[in-house]
Amino acid sequence: MIAIGIDIGGTSIKGAGITKEGKVLDVFSMPVDKADTQEATINKLINAVNVYVKDQGFKKEEILGIGCGVPGVMDTKTGIVTYSNNLRWFDLPIVEMLEKGTGLKVRITNDANAAALGEARFGAGKKYKNIIMITLGTGVGGGIVIDGKLFEGNLGKGAELGHSVLVMDGEQCSCGRKGCFEAYASATALIRDTKRAMEQHKESKCWEVAEKLGKIDARVAFEADRLGDEVGHQLVENYVKYLGEGLLNYFNIFRPEALILSGGIANEGEYLLSRLRKYFELYNYGFQGTPKVDLLVSELGYDSGKIGAAALFF
Amino acid sequence: MIAIGIDIGGTSIKGAGITKEGKVLDVFSMPVDKADTQEATINKLINAVNVYVKDQGFKKEEILGIGCGVPGVMDTKTGIVTYSNNLRWFDLPIVEMLEKGTGLKVRITNDANAAALGEARFGAGKKYKNIIMITLGTGVGGGIVIDGKLFEGNLGKGAELGHSVLVMDGEQCSCGRKGCFEAYASATALIRDTKRAMEQHKESKCWEVAEKLGKIDARVAFEADRLGDEVGHQLVENYVKYLGEGLLNYFNIFRPEALILSGGIANEGEYLLSRLRKYFELYNYGFQGTPKVDLLVSELGYDSGKIGAAALFF
Repeated sequence: MIAIGIDIGGTSIKGAGITKEGKVLDVFSMPVDKADTQEATINKLINAVNVYVKDQGFKKEEILGIGCGVPGVMDTKTGIVTYSNNLRWFDLPIVEMLEKGTGLKVRITNDANAAALGEARFGAGKKYKNIIMITLGTGVGGGIVIDGKLFEGNLGKGAELGHSVLVMDGEQCSCGRKGCFEAYASATALIRDTKRAMEQHKESKCWEVAEKLGKIDARVAFEADRLGDEVGHQLVENYVKYLGEGLLNYFNIFRPEALILSGGIANEGEYLLSRLRKYFELYNYGFQGTPKVDLLVSELGYDSGKIGAAALFF
Repeated sequence: MIAIGIDIGGTSIKGAGITKEGKVLDVFSMPVDKADTQEATINKLINAVNVYVKDQGFKKEEILGIGCGVPGVMDTKTGIVTYSNNLRWFDLPIVEMLEKGTGLKVRITNDANAAALGEARFGAGKKYKNIIMITLGTGVGGGIVIDGKLFEGNLGKGAELGHSVLVMDGEQCSCGRKGCFEAYASATALIRDTKRAMEQHKESKCWEVAEKLGKIDARVAFEADRLGDEVGHQLVENYVKYLGEGLLNYFNIFRPEALILSGGIANEGEYLLSRLRKYFELYNYGFQGTPKVDLLVSELGYDSGKIGAAALFF
């Protein structure tokens, strides 16, 4: 028995058969054409799935269902995507449409939740029962796995771990509030801070690094820090402080066994993790006997979303 | 069948038989003598329970067990209270001692968790499956009930909802970090702010109110506000802003069906709740279809801890 895991993104949709052991079989992919209506996109997806199932020689009865990770806000019970900013979807009954078009059972969840479930079951979190995953990308996404199951909140609208205020009246967040964790710990936030610092410090090595990379992205500060640049160093220290405080909040709220970081900035790996662990030693919740939270990075990378979406059926 | 629910406090220990319907039977109470060793206190408690069971005419086989809510940090699996600041308990194997001394099964949880479970099962939260309870007292306590069960985190050390930073580098918190929710939303925090404002405003009606109450407590600001005092008004507005932001964080993290407030400040009732609801309308998470969180106050009051402790067996 397998399930099909689909990772819906703003520019492309990728899917694959996933075994109950979390193995990714052949992958299919289709671009998202911004000119298409939302219904047209789903019809193309139905076709892509049907062709894939036929090509792979899967029998319908050996497919448990299709799980989809969607970037947006949805009601996981009714199967309707209320709103997706990236895809410009509104009130789209994706589950009903896909079920009709493929004859298979369909479940949906938020893309960050899908990635968390994938990591929890088959990736960095497989040793644990309770994990939190935080994705440090354009925004900050969150996923909560309790006793091996996704916790999504009422109508699937909880686990918005990027939208918790860390700095009252701080930087404007995309959600409308000010000072959210996302406004300090996302790649977007680090890029904003890097640009500000570079404007003030024309002597900084950040300029060379950015020229080499061809753009100012979230790697500039880390690379400049590694080159011994003081501006880069301050940017990384500052980033670690805000990210660290936000993560400590989730330690105290959930006291998970492990917290897994994913997304572009998590690619800094031990360079970032070792600094965070040092920060946690200074400011960890002070009572005796409070268990440490294992801090890890994603093992499944871009596959976590597909695997986790399929795992909605495992 | 009943269970015995025990609410352990810093100055007294109260218990009662609780029916499966959440009804509180006769209550027993014993003072905590600060001069006693921790073992002596538990031995007195064993005696109090045994006398109570005998007096009530309960048969051992009709008692499911004894649930205890303890103010402190504990390992709910091993049944050891690692640390209680109020009681000055350290590494106390309370479950083992009580089981030996009473011949009954014993379970423990944090007092805030017990109160949350009580409210969830039999109080303000009984209509809902997922609730958060926040206790606004000397500190800020939290309890998380998911699918009708307590979520306590690894070794029972999660749900520290007062110890999440809301204001980076803000007011010193008792936990060692700065700017925690507790440092802004507790009665202690409101009293601190009231004293500061009174020092600066000798003309404020807060002075009269405090004189009438015989002390400066958390009611002063609210009472002065009701009297039309500008200083009281600003204090309440400010308190609502910080409390509101902290609660909105928990809305986004958990998206519970209901959030229940308890503790002294919750006694302000609708005067506080109506102001919070107005704040939420302005700053609620902006996506379409996000369900509202019902904001409620505790219905069980001081009984919630006993009832919830007993409910560890229901």
